[in-house]
Amino acid sequence: MDRYLVISSDGHAGPPAEHYREYLEERYRPAFDDHQAQTRAMREAMHKARGAGDNSEFMKDWNAQTDGDGGLLAAYDSDYRNKVLDIEGVAAEVLFPDADVLGTGRVAASPFGSGLAGGAGNAPELALAGAKAHNRWLADFCAQEPHRRIGVALIPILFDIEAAVAEIEAAREMGLRGIMIPTRWFDQPAYHDPVYDPVWAAAQANGMVMHTHSGAGPADYGEGRGTMPIYASEAYWWAARPLWVLLWAGVFERYPELHYVVAENGAWWAPDLLFKMDDKWVGSHNTAKMGDVFRKELKMKPSDYFHRNCALAPSTPGPEDIDRRHGVGVENWLWGNDLPHPEGTFPFTRYWMRERLHDVPVEEARLMLGENSAALYGVDRDALAPLVAEIGPTLDEVHGDTPIEPAPTF
Amino acid sequence: MDRYLVISSDGHAGPPAEHYREYLEERYRPAFDDHQAQTRAMREAMHKARGAGDNSEFMKDWNAQTDGDGGLLAAYDSDYRNKVLDIEGVAAEVLFPDADVLGTGRVAASPFGSGLAGGAGNAPELALAGAKAHNRWLADFCAQEPHRRIGVALIPILFDIEAAVAEIEAAREMGLRGIMIPTRWFDQPAYHDPVYDPVWAAAQANGMVMHTHSGAGPADYGEGRGTMPIYASEAYWWAARPLWVLLWAGVFERYPELHYVVAENGAWWAPDLLFKMDDKWVGSHNTAKMGDVFRKELKMKPSDYFHRNCALAPSTPGPEDIDRRHGVGVENWLWGNDLPHPEGTFPFTRYWMRERLHDVPVEEARLMLGENSAALYGVDRDALAPLVAEIGPTLDEVHGDTPIEPAPTF
Repeated sequence: MDRYLVISSDGHAGPPAEHYREYLEERYRPAFDDHQAQTRAMREAMHKARGAGDNSEFMKDWNAQTDGDGGLLAAYDSDYRNKVLDIEGVAAEVLFPDADVLGTGRVAASPFGSGLAGGAGNAPELALAGAKAHNRWLADFCAQEPHRRIGVALIPILFDIEAAVAEIEAAREMGLRGIMIPTRWFDQPAYHDPVYDPVWAAAQANGMVMHTHSGAGPADYGEGRGTMPIYASEAYWWAARPLWVLLWAGVFERYPELHYVVAENGAWWAPDLLFKMDDKWVGSHNTAKMGDVFRKELKMKPSDYFHRNCALAPSTPGPEDIDRRHGVGVENWLWGNDLPHPEGTFPFTRYWMRERLHDVPVEEARLMLGENSAALYGVDRDALAPLVAEIGPTLDEVHGDTPIEPAPTF
Repeated sequence: MDRYLVISSDGHAGPPAEHYREYLEERYRPAFDDHQAQTRAMREAMHKARGAGDNSEFMKDWNAQTDGDGGLLAAYDSDYRNKVLDIEGVAAEVLFPDADVLGTGRVAASPFGSGLAGGAGNAPELALAGAKAHNRWLADFCAQEPHRRIGVALIPILFDIEAAVAEIEAAREMGLRGIMIPTRWFDQPAYHDPVYDPVWAAAQANGMVMHTHSGAGPADYGEGRGTMPIYASEAYWWAARPLWVLLWAGVFERYPELHYVVAENGAWWAPDLLFKMDDKWVGSHNTAKMGDVFRKELKMKPSDYFHRNCALAPSTPGPEDIDRRHGVGVENWLWGNDLPHPEGTFPFTRYWMRERLHDVPVEEARLMLGENSAALYGVDRDALAPLVAEIGPTLDEVHGDTPIEPAPTF
C-alpha cells in the first residue's frame, strides 16, 4: 500500500444548541435554555476578566480558511465533515464533544458543561442528563458513517457510580466505542480511590477505551494578571494527572485489559514521567527512606503498564512530540487533528504530516498515523480500504519533497 | 585555586520543640504544646493511612551512618553541624526550616507548621507567631557562623500582607538573607494577584532572595491507593508552580531586581518549561487564536526573565539534572545537599560530586557548586577562603579517578 491509513485520535463533534435540545429529556429543556443564556453571558464576562488579547488578525485568517462559517459546520454536518476529512487525507476519527470554536464566538458545547469541563459547576443530575443527550446525538452522528466515526461517550463518574456504569453499558449498546471521564475530580475523591473500581471494571468488560481530554483548568486563579498564559503553560499537566494517579493506584494491575488514552495533550512530557516513575519503583537513594511503598500496588514497573494499557494522542504535534516518540513508545503514540478547533491542523493537515513525519521511518509513521488507533478501537480496515486508496496521503506526499498546499502563513 | 568553593543551596536547620518553645512569645506556648501533641498523633495516623511501606532496612543503614542520632543533632548543634560540613567539603549553606528526619521518627519542625507546610491548617496568627519564633532562632544560629550560614526567614504571606512586609524588614535587620514564602496558596489568591505586590517590592528593596521549597502537596488525595507514590511523582510540579505563575504575571518585569529560587526540586524539568513558554510568547499556530495575550505582561521572552531573576537548587541532583544544565542555564543552577534529610547527599556528598560532576568542565562546576550562590547571596569569599583551602574538594577529587569513600551501598 503506497498510502497511509490516517485516523485522527482527536476530533470534536456536536451540534448547535437548538439541535441538542431535542436530544434532551423534555423535563431538562427549560434548565437547558437557562444554562445556555448563562453560559453565553459568562463567556463574555470571562473573556473580558481574563484579559484576553486582541485576536482580530487571527479571526480574519480563520474565517477565510473555513468558508466563512468558522469551521463549525464540520462539527455536526455529516456530509460537510466527510468533505473536510477527505481534503485532509483522514479516513476515520475518534470523536469527543465540544466542537466549540473558542475565540471565534461560535459555540457547540454538550449540554450543562457535560463535555470537556467534566460537568463542573452544575448539579450532578444535569451533568448526567447533558451527557446522555450528547451520547444519543453522537450515536446518531456516528451511525451515518459507522467506519469513519469512533464515538466517545461522556460518562460523568464523580457523583453516581451506578448511573455511570449503566451509561457505559448504554453507550456500548448504541455503538459508541469509548468513554470520556472528567479530567478533574474537583472536590470528589481522586481517581486512586477504590470507589471508582466499578467504572474501570465496566469499561474493561465492555471493551470501551477510556479517555481524559485536556481542557479542564484549576479553580484557584482568581483575579490575577496573566491568567490565560498561566493556564496555557500548565493545562497539559492537569490533563495528564489522572495517568499517574490511576497507574500508581494499581488500576492497570487490577484491570489489565483496560485501555486509557490521554487526548490532545502532547506526548513530549511522557518520557521523563516514565523514567522518573520507574526510577522510584526500582528504588534509589532518594526513595530509600520510604521503603517498599512504590511496589505496593504494582507487580511490573510503571512504564510496563503504560506501554500495555495507555496511549497518548498529541494533536497538532510539535517537533518535540515526534523526536521523543521512542521514549513514549511508537505503539503508544496516536496522531490527532483536533478538527474543527482553530488550534487543530485543519486546513493544514497534509502539510503538518510532511513537516513532522518527513524523516520518520515509514513503519513507525504507519503506526503513529493510523495503525495504532485501528488496533485500539477495532477499526474495520477492510471497510475503509477503498477510501484510503482514494484520499490517504501517499508515501511521497509525506516523505517526498514536492511542496504541500495549503501551508500556514506564519 | 585547586579546590572548589562549595555552597549548599539547600540545608535545613531547626531545634527540637523544647528549644523552639523559648523563642515563641509566651502567650503562644500553650497552643504550641497542644499543636506538638496533635502533630505527633497526626503523623502516626497519616503514616498508617497512607500505607507507608516497610523501611526497616533503610533505618538500620541510616542510624549506622549518622552516629546513631538519626542526623538530627546537625540540625541545631552549631559545632556538630560544622564538623559534618567539613567532612562533606561544604563551606557555606542556605538554611531552610524543618530539619525533620521524616520516616525516622525524629522531628524538628518550625512551630505551627510555619515551615515547609506553609502554615497549612493553622490559624494565620499562629503561623505568623511560629515563623517569627523560627526566624529568631535561625538568626541566633546563623550569628554563630555568619560567613558559613545564610539564613532564610519564613514569611507567611497569605493572610496579612502588612505583617509579611514587616517581618521581611525584621528578618533583614536580624541578618537573615532570604525569605521563604508558602509553596502553595491554598484557598487564598494565587501569586499572580497584585495583592502580593508589596511582598515582592519588600523582598526586592531589602535585597532578600525569595524562595519556595518543595514539600507542600495537594489537599485532594483522600483515601485512595498509592497516595505516597502519586505524591512523589507530582511533588516537583506543585513546588515549581509559583515559578510560571509569578513569571507570566509580570512580577519579574515589574521587580527587575527580585531574585527567586526554587529549592530542592530538581532542574531537569526547566528546559522544557522554558522552551514551551518562549514558544507561546513568540507565537505559533497553536496560540494564534489567543492573539497577543502572551505578551501582555512581558516585554522580554519568558526565559530571559528566568535567566535574569531565577535559579534552581536541585538537591541530590540526578544525571538528568546535570545533563540538562545548559538548558537550565549554568548560571541558574545551584548545588544543594539537603542536610540533614535522609534523602540528601549526606554522608556521601564528596562521592556524589565525583559521580555527577566528573565530566563537567571545571569552569561550569565552579559556578554550579558555589560561585552562583556566592554571587546571589553576597557571600564573603575572602572570609571563607582559609576554610575552603582546608576542606574544599580538590579538582582531583571531583574530576580524577581515585575512589571516593564513603560510597552508598545501593
